Amino acid sequence: MTTTRSVLADQATDFPRWFQDVIAKAELADNGPVRGTMVIRPYGYGIWEHLQSAMDQRIKATGAANAYFPLLIPESYLRREAEHVEGFSPELAVVTHAGGKQLEEPAIVRPTSETVIGEYMAKWIQSYRDLPLLLNQWANAVRWELRPRLFLRTTEFLWQEGHTAHATAEDARAFATRILYDVYRDVMVNILAIPVVPGRKTRRERFAGAVNTMTLEAMTGDGKALQMGTSHELGQNFARAFDIGYLSSDGQRELAWTTSWGSTTRMVGGLIMVHGDAAGLRIPPLVAPTQVVVLAVRDETIEAAQRIAADLTAAGLRVMVDDRTDQPFGRRAVNWELKGVPIRIELGPRDLAANVATVVRRLRDSSKEAVNLADLTREVVGGIEADQTHLLDEAARKHAARTTAVNTVDEALEAAPDGWVSLPYDEVGEEGEDRLGAAGISVRCLQRPDGSLPTEDNEQGLTAFAARSY
Amino acid sequence: MTTTRSVLADQATDFPRWFQDVIAKAELADNGPVRGTMVIRPYGYGIWEHLQSAMDQRIKATGAANAYFPLLIPESYLRREAEHVEGFSPELAVVTHAGGKQLEEPAIVRPTSETVIGEYMAKWIQSYRDLPLLLNQWANAVRWELRPRLFLRTTEFLWQEGHTAHATAEDARAFATRILYDVYRDVMVNILAIPVVPGRKTRRERFAGAVNTMTLEAMTGDGKALQMGTSHELGQNFARAFDIGYLSSDGQRELAWTTSWGSTTRMVGGLIMVHGDAAGLRIPPLVAPTQVVVLAVRDETIEAAQRIAADLTAAGLRVMVDDRTDQPFGRRAVNWELKGVPIRIELGPRDLAANVATVVRRLRDSSKEAVNLADLTREVVGGIEADQTHLLDEAARKHAARTTAVNTVDEALEAAPDGWVSLPYDEVGEEGEDRLGAAGISVRCLQRPDGSLPTEDNEQGLTAFAARSY
Repeated sequence: MTTTRSVLADQATDFPRWFQDVIAKAELADNGPVRGTMVIRPYGYGIWEHLQSAMDQRIKATGAANAYFPLLIPESYLRREAEHVEGFSPELAVVTHAGGKQLEEPAIVRPTSETVIGEYMAKWIQSYRDLPLLLNQWANAVRWELRPRLFLRTTEFLWQEGHTAHATAEDARAFATRILYDVYRDVMVNILAIPVVPGRKTRRERFAGAVNTMTLEAMTGDGKALQMGTSHELGQNFARAFDIGYLSSDGQRELAWTTSWGSTTRMVGGLIMVHGDAAGLRIPPLVAPTQVVVLAVRDETIEAAQRIAADLTAAGLRVMVDDRTDQPFGRRAVNWELKGVPIRIELGPRDLAANVATVVRRLRDSSKEAVNLADLTREVVGGIEADQTHLLDEAARKHAARTTAVNTVDEALEAAPDGWVSLPYDEVGEEGEDRLGAAGISVRCLQRPDGSLPTEDNEQGLTAFAARSY
Repeated sequence: MTTTRSVLADQATDFPRWFQDVIAKAELADNGPVRGTMVIRPYGYGIWEHLQSAMDQRIKATGAANAYFPLLIPESYLRREAEHVEGFSPELAVVTHAGGKQLEEPAIVRPTSETVIGEYMAKWIQSYRDLPLLLNQWANAVRWELRPRLFLRTTEFLWQEGHTAHATAEDARAFATRILYDVYRDVMVNILAIPVVPGRKTRRERFAGAVNTMTLEAMTGDGKALQMGTSHELGQNFARAFDIGYLSSDGQRELAWTTSWGSTTRMVGGLIMVHGDAAGLRIPPLVAPTQVVVLAVRDETIEAAQRIAADLTAAGLRVMVDDRTDQPFGRRAVNWELKGVPIRIELGPRDLAANVATVVRRLRDSSKEAVNLADLTREVVGGIEADQTHLLDEAARKHAARTTAVNTVDEALEAAPDGWVSLPYDEVGEEGEDRLGAAGISVRCLQRPDGSLPTEDNEQGLTAFAARSY
């Protein structure tokens, strides 16, 4: 472990630097050449691919279909919805020249596809029969970032953005809520092993143009909050701006009700920040590009390592063999810890002679156990399933331990630097949000006492979760 | 069929217009708001998703890993390889303003990621141990098109671009060739049912900076050629420009040998142009978003239609029920023909009474057969497998029938307007290419007499394939 500690900043004293170090040393990503952009390296992209696949399956299960809208949007589109452009204009990247000359109308590199999708929804929707229209897009988007941070806030990011149109407010609300719980929360909790807190954003934290923004918030290893995904009810605001209307079954022209919802490569940042430890990354097995690495300690154990790997692969696991026996064993072991591979199997000549392999469980404090070769596949398959659950339980315990229930804004100001606080929202209000904000603390979300989401503004008796945030 | 014919231009007399009509009426894509861009609608994107998944699996099987590089590239990067920028500069889209002000250095919206990937390869590769480095990226790219055409040539397109670095010229050549055959040709032939012709590009048709461009060419329904994918050996040209070097096992500094290879949303255009007929689209079953549609003719057959659909879905097929019994049956049937769904099952009250369903095979001239309900799933599963093969056989027959072997450039000029010609390349040369070019005909590719690919320029005894092209 000594070697690892020397290549990573201390997690307890400089968490942001530790985060950067893990990303670099585990070969997850690099800074891109244009400021704020990111190169996602194969190991980082592998995590994203598994995450994306889990998310995509669940999105399709709601009935939404993937489509693709253009990267470049005429500048005039973004002016159409005043509130929208105000939220975005300082972040826009503008193409002024193309095809060797100046464009008559500049084109914006999409910060979101909301406006262009609105335009086509208006065209495609004619009657109530065309509703609901449920669209999703996997794409890149660009928002110029002043304080970029890899994965969390990059000038270009990858994401899915969903946009739907419905006949009634109830349908729109039900769909936006379904996305929050059945898609986003399900992936975050059951795939990423992150115990996210669902809630409604306060009016000031709401997405520009939305009538309700629902969020899922994670707690990072340094006790801050990280917004992991949001789902918005847009009421009829957006439909009005883009003229998304339909003929009802009794022949009346009506405005549609729309939603939008997005989740990004930021989730990979969340995974690092929630599960990482002093030795580096710890990847939930379900999204780990490599779930098991088999280390041949010496040349004479390479063949056996390959046989073990073949058995584990046949059992459905993603397995790699490390046969770089010309490199120091300790350095290789530490490197796999840094990369957060859930299970490492070490195979030396003495192990082989005793008919065992040493199984190291990264997600259980790297505990070691000699396992009989005959039981190895069964033990590893069972172990990796248990480790996925263990990771979630561990994160949930930390989350609970670092959340303090307080009664007033003053108490919140005192307690929040150490983690999250929960407090009665009736005690906060707009004024309380100002005071918290001045101290760098924001209300992350609101819940009803039973943990469910309020659907209207200014409901009494709500619980607010407040914290510093990324 | 009358209705369909009226909504589509005549395929025989105006193929390009027919192509446009099919894309619009089958709801595959729309023109985007910025000239030359494309909105890929769910039905078109569904085809792309199946195609992409087949391609991605095969790319990963070669050992290449996916990564993601930034959309925006500093202008100076593109100047680094002179030949490269010359090939691209009139096509570039340039971001001059971002974050509310003018950028110090303009950023180019990637026309390809070659330069930025080269930069990072140089950084990541230190020693022979780091080779081969096999990278692939799924992304969008922008090249300003003067004569855009949906799917075939759009200002923005989706693609995969692969970039690899190797220790020797032989390794690089073997890998580029493997991509051509085991990835691209396999997908095009066995998934898209398109009998592509592999070959080497002539010097003038070669990718800027490549020492060898290998291509796969399809024949469209109007007898032209469509380039479906290319794989390039870049020699050491690119490695020299980007300083991609490595320390060999005996400690010498060496330059790497690189390859690049790409395939795009153009393949969807190829699918339409190769398989479409007067009634519209015909989709190969393996990439069909809907493989079987079950049409309830009347309300009283909806329930039975749903049961049939459930059985077919359980058998692993992608199935839809059309229960829009308030719309004319004929119009619905024609619409599914237009959309190219491989198998349509019609279920009317008389069918039900006779315990049969009418199976219509779109890929077999919409032949109809009454099938006993008890045999339906088996018949449809078997039928759809046979239809995939049938579609390829049919396309191969047409391809062969419309390829004329000639002996001279004069004969080629005479025969080419009706389809492809094959002729001895020794008869063509640079001068012959000029003469063909003046008549709008290009040499699509070169093969050895046995159909294999020549690996060096100016080899004698090659066969040239020439045609008009898209």
